[in-house]
Amino acid sequence: MEPMQTIERLSFNQITADRLSLPEVVDCCARAEVPWIALWRHKVAETGLAESKRLVQNAGLRVSSLCRGGMFPAATAAERQARIDDNRRAVDEAAELGAEVLVLVCGPAPDKDIAAARQMVEDGIAQLMPYAQSCGIKLGIEPLHPMYAAERSVINTLAQANTIAEQYSPEQCGVVVDAFHVWWDPELYAQISRASGRILGFHVSDWIVPTPDLLMGRGMMGDGVIDLRRIRSAVEAAGYHGPIEVEIFNRTIWDMSGDDVFALTKDRFIKHV
Amino acid sequence: MEPMQTIERLSFNQITADRLSLPEVVDCCARAEVPWIALWRHKVAETGLAESKRLVQNAGLRVSSLCRGGMFPAATAAERQARIDDNRRAVDEAAELGAEVLVLVCGPAPDKDIAAARQMVEDGIAQLMPYAQSCGIKLGIEPLHPMYAAERSVINTLAQANTIAEQYSPEQCGVVVDAFHVWWDPELYAQISRASGRILGFHVSDWIVPTPDLLMGRGMMGDGVIDLRRIRSAVEAAGYHGPIEVEIFNRTIWDMSGDDVFALTKDRFIKHV
Repeated sequence: MEPMQTIERLSFNQITADRLSLPEVVDCCARAEVPWIALWRHKVAETGLAESKRLVQNAGLRVSSLCRGGMFPAATAAERQARIDDNRRAVDEAAELGAEVLVLVCGPAPDKDIAAARQMVEDGIAQLMPYAQSCGIKLGIEPLHPMYAAERSVINTLAQANTIAEQYSPEQCGVVVDAFHVWWDPELYAQISRASGRILGFHVSDWIVPTPDLLMGRGMMGDGVIDLRRIRSAVEAAGYHGPIEVEIFNRTIWDMSGDDVFALTKDRFIKHV
Repeated sequence: MEPMQTIERLSFNQITADRLSLPEVVDCCARAEVPWIALWRHKVAETGLAESKRLVQNAGLRVSSLCRGGMFPAATAAERQARIDDNRRAVDEAAELGAEVLVLVCGPAPDKDIAAARQMVEDGIAQLMPYAQSCGIKLGIEPLHPMYAAERSVINTLAQANTIAEQYSPEQCGVVVDAFHVWWDPELYAQISRASGRILGFHVSDWIVPTPDLLMGRGMMGDGVIDLRRIRSAVEAAGYHGPIEVEIFNRTIWDMSGDDVFALTKDRFIKHV
């Protein structure tokens, strides 16, 4: 396959440069001519929603997604309702920022009953859906790697995400394919195909070996073992031609200057994605 | 459900006391009246095969399994053959030690083609099977947690292990259910049921939160989020009533004295398994 040889679809997820503020990342995008950005709610909150929107628009950037909604399971009905309320605010913010997709990191179980927590996720998405639809925001269910099942999400395979998403129209709900989370899955290509027409995002990074850490072990594309080009090809065959987010948690990358991270990201995106 | 309230089925996997030699672990088993032991090849090699056998027999211990065969994928045919040769030696050692089961940790991919590596695992098991059968050793395919896909095994779900094992009779090949590796799997209970009659081992530990490390993050039963009793119940409903191995990689536990580890293991086994 030919390299992509363009950054037209590159979206810079701002967590990849975690030390930078939102205004600083927007400046880097503009200087590097990266056309898309993915935002995190806590970063938007630091800068302020209106100011974040103004900066992104003035820079001519498009917002591929907002991270993150979700975190549905909780021990009490009151707490679960509070999570829904927070998700509604996330939907509002996504709409204000012009993001089409709110990424859902669905949350861990409040106790040892992981099956019950998975049901809470389904229920929470059902409860949130009418409001999201009324705001024109699609909910993108992102399965997280099984090593995060205890702390971040009980949705750990694309099969689970597809099963939930299929309860809705593709205009309402879909899945987000993050290569780092799903590359190991024996059902990966079957499930990408099953997700045809409802893939709402594609995230790339790499799995580095030896893996130094559960959270901070992601690497820059090309530094690990993931066959990113094969996965991109499958995602495209399933009809997804939208922005491709680079989302990396890695202390070495965080210690680089913003412009250096952007230069490296663009180079690796062209060579390996 | 009633607690087990007996250690009749407890098998101490010697890696749980990694600082001890095989003779020291055997002594601890005898003092603690633990009836089963699981051995590792590198520990057996340190003490010598004949001496290891003598010690285990003299202590009246039964060997639940030998760890480990596997590691089938490799870049060249010659290297794959060398792995098979090593697996035959592992079968010999298992037979000499009176272990019925050789646990297979199937190995990582030599490159980015994880599907090809999975095929190499199937081919390797097929190649090894006649010899194992002739020695009366069952091959127990242990799926490893997906976070080990890049470094230890491309067999990451019980579904994969079942699919391979079903190509053989239950007298030849089965699966090993290690709670730490499979607790997160949405298909866990369906796949345990599917494995009825061919479960060759059940391993317990716990998943501690926050998870400190990929390899050393296992905890003592009761210290984490795994619903061990529910999994034990499912494994028993699938017909497994053999030894239950406690297998824990954890530096804090490794720093305890042998007798203290055994006391804690027995206590937690009775309370939480």
